[in-house]
Amino acid sequence: MAATAGGPRLRAGLGQGSRGTARHGLTSASGPAAARRSRPRSRPAAPPPATHERRRERGPGPGAAPGAGAAPGTWSRRCRTHRPVLFPLPQELLLAAAFVSDAQYNRNIPFKTSPEAVRLYYLYNHWIMRTATYFFIFLNLSLAVFEEPAVYPLPFLATSLVEVLCLLVFFGRLTHFAKITPRNVFWKDTKNICIMVAILLSLTDLAIYGALRIYNIKSIRWSRIARPIFLINFAESRQIRRAFRSIRNTLPEITYVFLLFMFSLLMFSLMALKLFGERNLQTAEGLPYFRNYLEIVFDLYVLVTTANSPDVMMPAFDFSSWYALFFIAFVIVNTYIFMSLFLAVVYNNYKKHLKNEIRKLAYMKHRKMIEAFNLLKEEEGAQPVVREARWKQLVKLVAPDISNSHRELLLRISDDEQKGFIDKKSFVQLADLLNIQVITLKIRSHPLGQWMPRVYKSAVSQFLRSMVRHRGFVWTYDAIILINAIFIALDEETPYISYAEWVFLALYIIEILLKVYTYEPRVFFGKNQFWNWFDTLIIFAALTATILNTTLRSTTKYNSQQILDIVFILRVLRLIRIVDSIQRFRVIMNTLINIVPTMLTFGGLTLVVYCIFAIIGMELFHGKIQFFPVNSNAPYALECGNPALKDSLFARGKYCKNNFNNFASSFIVLMELTVVNQWHDILCGGRPAKLYFIAFHIVMVIIIVNIFVSFILEAFFVEYSLEKSEVETAIEQKIQELGMGVQEEVLQDEQLLDNMESAEHDLEGEVGTKTQPRGLVFKIASKRYRTVDALLQRMFEAEIPPEDEGPSFEEILNLSPTAAGPSHLTSERAV
Amino acid sequence: MAATAGGPRLRAGLGQGSRGTARHGLTSASGPAAARRSRPRSRPAAPPPATHERRRERGPGPGAAPGAGAAPGTWSRRCRTHRPVLFPLPQELLLAAAFVSDAQYNRNIPFKTSPEAVRLYYLYNHWIMRTATYFFIFLNLSLAVFEEPAVYPLPFLATSLVEVLCLLVFFGRLTHFAKITPRNVFWKDTKNICIMVAILLSLTDLAIYGALRIYNIKSIRWSRIARPIFLINFAESRQIRRAFRSIRNTLPEITYVFLLFMFSLLMFSLMALKLFGERNLQTAEGLPYFRNYLEIVFDLYVLVTTANSPDVMMPAFDFSSWYALFFIAFVIVNTYIFMSLFLAVVYNNYKKHLKNEIRKLAYMKHRKMIEAFNLLKEEEGAQPVVREARWKQLVKLVAPDISNSHRELLLRISDDEQKGFIDKKSFVQLADLLNIQVITLKIRSHPLGQWMPRVYKSAVSQFLRSMVRHRGFVWTYDAIILINAIFIALDEETPYISYAEWVFLALYIIEILLKVYTYEPRVFFGKNQFWNWFDTLIIFAALTATILNTTLRSTTKYNSQQILDIVFILRVLRLIRIVDSIQRFRVIMNTLINIVPTMLTFGGLTLVVYCIFAIIGMELFHGKIQFFPVNSNAPYALECGNPALKDSLFARGKYCKNNFNNFASSFIVLMELTVVNQWHDILCGGRPAKLYFIAFHIVMVIIIVNIFVSFILEAFFVEYSLEKSEVETAIEQKIQELGMGVQEEVLQDEQLLDNMESAEHDLEGEVGTKTQPRGLVFKIASKRYRTVDALLQRMFEAEIPPEDEGPSFEEILNLSPTAAGPSHLTSERAV
Repeated sequence: MAATAGGPRLRAGLGQGSRGTARHGLTSASGPAAARRSRPRSRPAAPPPATHERRRERGPGPGAAPGAGAAPGTWSRRCRTHRPVLFPLPQELLLAAAFVSDAQYNRNIPFKTSPEAVRLYYLYNHWIMRTATYFFIFLNLSLAVFEEPAVYPLPFLATSLVEVLCLLVFFGRLTHFAKITPRNVFWKDTKNICIMVAILLSLTDLAIYGALRIYNIKSIRWSRIARPIFLINFAESRQIRRAFRSIRNTLPEITYVFLLFMFSLLMFSLMALKLFGERNLQTAEGLPYFRNYLEIVFDLYVLVTTANSPDVMMPAFDFSSWYALFFIAFVIVNTYIFMSLFLAVVYNNYKKHLKNEIRKLAYMKHRKMIEAFNLLKEEEGAQPVVREARWKQLVKLVAPDISNSHRELLLRISDDEQKGFIDKKSFVQLADLLNIQVITLKIRSHPLGQWMPRVYKSAVSQFLRSMVRHRGFVWTYDAIILINAIFIALDEETPYISYAEWVFLALYIIEILLKVYTYEPRVFFGKNQFWNWFDTLIIFAALTATILNTTLRSTTKYNSQQILDIVFILRVLRLIRIVDSIQRFRVIMNTLINIVPTMLTFGGLTLVVYCIFAIIGMELFHGKIQFFPVNSNAPYALECGNPALKDSLFARGKYCKNNFNNFASSFIVLMELTVVNQWHDILCGGRPAKLYFIAFHIVMVIIIVNIFVSFILEAFFVEYSLEKSEVETAIEQKIQELGMGVQEEVLQDEQLLDNMESAEHDLEGEVGTKTQPRGLVFKIASKRYRTVDALLQRMFEAEIPPEDEGPSFEEILNLSPTAAGPSHLTSERAV
Repeated sequence: MAATAGGPRLRAGLGQGSRGTARHGLTSASGPAAARRSRPRSRPAAPPPATHERRRERGPGPGAAPGAGAAPGTWSRRCRTHRPVLFPLPQELLLAAAFVSDAQYNRNIPFKTSPEAVRLYYLYNHWIMRTATYFFIFLNLSLAVFEEPAVYPLPFLATSLVEVLCLLVFFGRLTHFAKITPRNVFWKDTKNICIMVAILLSLTDLAIYGALRIYNIKSIRWSRIARPIFLINFAESRQIRRAFRSIRNTLPEITYVFLLFMFSLLMFSLMALKLFGERNLQTAEGLPYFRNYLEIVFDLYVLVTTANSPDVMMPAFDFSSWYALFFIAFVIVNTYIFMSLFLAVVYNNYKKHLKNEIRKLAYMKHRKMIEAFNLLKEEEGAQPVVREARWKQLVKLVAPDISNSHRELLLRISDDEQKGFIDKKSFVQLADLLNIQVITLKIRSHPLGQWMPRVYKSAVSQFLRSMVRHRGFVWTYDAIILINAIFIALDEETPYISYAEWVFLALYIIEILLKVYTYEPRVFFGKNQFWNWFDTLIIFAALTATILNTTLRSTTKYNSQQILDIVFILRVLRLIRIVDSIQRFRVIMNTLINIVPTMLTFGGLTLVVYCIFAIIGMELFHGKIQFFPVNSNAPYALECGNPALKDSLFARGKYCKNNFNNFASSFIVLMELTVVNQWHDILCGGRPAKLYFIAFHIVMVIIIVNIFVSFILEAFFVEYSLEKSEVETAIEQKIQELGMGVQEEVLQDEQLLDNMESAEHDLEGEVGTKTQPRGLVFKIASKRYRTVDALLQRMFEAEIPPEDEGPSFEEILNLSPTAAGPSHLTSERAV
């Protein structure tokens, strides 16, 4: 009975936490007793495996549920035969753990359930494998920096070798994935097909380009556009894929509004042509004004983006003031109403589809947890349950890095009445429970207090510590930061002021030392102490950089510009700390920090769009504009090496460095185009340039930026209105019930630590007389979300009815936000 | 019994509508019967007046409920003494009608209930009085056009006389208002105080300015800033006031985000100073780059608005590509995140406070309806009810212009079981019922069919009419419109094309004539036939203008430019018609048309802000910049008459006409500043100009434009998700039940008319055999909202719990969107 033997061993790890509790004694049934109770499980066990069986036999349908569609001879069938022999089948546990882990992280990979496949699946999800995949994806994307036209040129051989390496890695990853999933699922998944096609295309293109290169024939590396496909289509980029899906779902409605907008634009252009076309007006540059219909359309499109706002109006306005009314009407209708309409449509669809996706995810999670439950369940009376020992093994497998006391806490929440087993309903909650970041705070005395108690507990030390804990300490340092800001703004050259910098650095270091002296260091540098980490890292980086710079200056008489820049930035960043002192600002800042991970999704989205447009842009516009440093005596240096640009606004604005000559420049130009201003000046080409820029504007500004704004709006509304989710409240309640909690409302750093300090004092006198487990305090880090999905799920959790079973797998896949039919969801099988 | 005698007379007006119905016979109890039933009312009637009494005795509290706080000897008490003598007291009915009308239009003016006051109140709310008030408000505002610096100069005496006239009118209106409201309420209302102070200030300023003018001393007409006060504070501008209140309520939260944003801006500026300040870089104009801290702050503020997007980056970018990262980080944090945050905060607060306001309005409406009910109620068993005859008199008073059949329909809805009286619950709904636009369509044969039936019913005519009704007719004309668009775009000078215009005009006129021939003209030009009106007006205006222009040209050989412009615009506007042919576009267009009235509120808001800023701007910047026509030989014509502007971007962009030299120019400059682009160029002054522009940006762009966007977002979400409101469904159900309805789903113009036509055919054969009242069809114009409040109320109606009594008057006034306390609502007494 290897498993039950694990029981005491596990419990031993709980340490102080489990000792003092009277009620806990009930649950700590010793090994043999647990074994006795587990005996009914070894019955033929018809109902539980039957449901599993049934579900498996339904597969491999088009749905291909996780665990469904297994090949004949998967181990769960094989194992059942010798189940009575070996009680906690490690494979069965492993499979259940895989399900729970998938549920926790919202992975929806339909893997085979054979033991080898499960083992391979663990390997597939290992963080090293995933990190490596991402590394090669970004390496592949960044090749554009080294390929012609290069920022840092490398020989063709080098880049092509790296590319082949990347493609091999992708192929390997795909093969690995193929071994995990059932064959029919694998070949029906468009993602996999996409990757394979992209690999093939890239290799073909590389071969052709290389061959032509040998004969000195220039050709285009067209397959480079396909590179972002790897970023989108590997199973790891769920969020980016979801964002793309969201865009695709929004497209039909956007299209209608866009057509109406285009109609309005064309109408206004026609009016403009009639009104101004025959006036013989001239622009400020002396060019003909509003003569050609297509040019009017373009100019007015630019006006919608406000980029040429007064300029385009001035000639008509100078001619007659009344014509300003035309432009006012145009701006109101197109810029204000239509652009808001785009936002409304995007936001509305974003919300609708996101809700649907999240609902799907929630159902999938539920299914997987039931799947896991069915693997582990035993009979307790008529009720299928999971026994405590198994449950603990499972949790250990799923989350190996959570502390024993945390696991014990989860057990107490799941097994509320301490019956020694967990029923289905509580078991299903496990995935959510694991996603809540419970911070285990061990109350321990300060190491200095243990090391030299006499000194640490002396009156001076007590006074020092109470001083540090006082509100005035924070205020003093806020004042110091403000004074520092003034010194930073002053001239650096005065020696007096450059010495002051040392004083400030010293003051900050003293602050950190004092705090570490007062608070327990492991608590001070706890996982969730964002600002403490921030302070310390900034100060030490600044200190290092300043010392380095001074050393360099005194030895080589040379200021390293890079180091100085970093020092400047670090010093200024230190000032952010002051924001944290004001409650209201802290709330806003926390929200902002919370949405950073999700913003990375938009970063990914932007990266994909930028990559594609940059590569196209380089092919189209490469070399048309040259940048020469100031005082260059190259011909046409002022005209960016292009005599056609003489006297253009482009040359006059000194925009020569805004070009598509390499990948980095292209990115910056695209960034400028995203910001939208002056884009009619930045582009200085003919019709292809205009089309390129309009396409970019539609994709980037009208769609992606609006989705980004929608996301921020939604995130803030959720933050403003969100009550704690149900599961979280359950945990908190439990924590409070067990007397191990810290009121979350008083969770200011100082107060928390004060609480702990006083708890410590209390306990010093009366050890063991209290039922509270000594020195162990939990708190929920509810303001941090471990995963992006978790934040998204919180957004809509409240609206999802808590159903017990949920719809069937096929129904989940076919969920649609409206009754419009599920056709658009078919390709989303394995999210 | 004068009242009951009115019963048959009223019913007689129903015409065909009431004739054929079998069930209706039940309700049309003759006069004496109604009188008999009404006898119980003449009891001492203790309970109903008691509640009225009680409520009145509570007043005049701080709340001053409508009808409360009446002076001693108000007629409702006096009248009760001789109530048995004169049955339907006209005054009582009048008071009740005033309450119902207030409830219908959401007016919340606490008027006295004495008969004279009620009569004055009717006068006060008369449309002529209200229109006159608005006329004088706008006249007063438009004085700025004629005063120095004037667009159209008028002598000082003329403008000051007009101003005095306006002020007198305002004073008269205020006195009128004072006669209506109880004294203590009047003097506690800040609106009234504001108006009085503004009148006094204006008069004082006018006197001082006039006196100084006589002695030729120039002074400032500072009281002109106070003029928008009249627009805001007269009781009629509820919407604008609500919008201002919404802004005021949003300010605290906006302020926090704004402070954080400013902090971020200052931090980035500090970094920029440190990074670029000592590089000796130069801008494209050769000016020093990023040297002075305040200038950096301003430049980066402008960058947040994206107005100087690549320019401000170029010098640093040219120096080192890495510095672009600084600007990218800046734009992401400040432009994208913080500006979205502003929108989120504004939107969130807008929604929250709007919901609260609407809730308050709904409760007030409910109270007023109960007030009216209590005035009219009689006892029927134990239940207080309002008898049918009284109810009809009331409706006639409240809505004199609705048809008899419409009133009969409302009665059937209110008195569902046709008991001859209306209970409290149904009575309270009356205000909502009146707000629903029910269109009474009388099915009658075409006048031509009556006039010359032989011709109209001939085979040719039948064919013609069926042709016009065919889908192909619409398609044909869509094709004609498209061809017309191409002809418009072609050159006007070719005689061939200018003749084509006549062809198109003729085709459009034929279309209208054919339609009028086919459909009943009164239906075709029904109130809600927006597009028919649109077509007809456009075409006849175009026809008139074209004929006028041709006549002018043939007689005087001179093209009138104004007329030509109008013709051009009309011709192009005609093209909009094509949008209406596509269902999806029609939905979007309808939503846009629906929100136009509410947008006028924002127009008012914008007007107020523009007026204030324009007047300040004229005082500050008047005359600094001169505009000279092209080829003027004035000195410094190219530098806008200001030598200091030589070589500035302002002069180079030919922006000379963007100045504050008169009211109209100021408005256009402010419009350009609202659009935000190039504002750093448009302003070309020192620090006061910068502060002025930043203040305008914060008020107009950050707050008002965001509220406007919020409104559009909300309006569209409501349109997307709105189910029909409860009351509307009740009406529709009733209409269907009575067999007088038209399915709203099939409400395309043509189909509607087809339906009617076929109904007509049906009835021709079998008159009187159907229970359906012949020739009468109702339909709900649910896509149009009669009042702005109605749209707003629909927005949140679903969220308001339908309580029977609702909170007390004081509670209503103290409703707050959060538990933050009602302090900010105190000044909102009489909305």
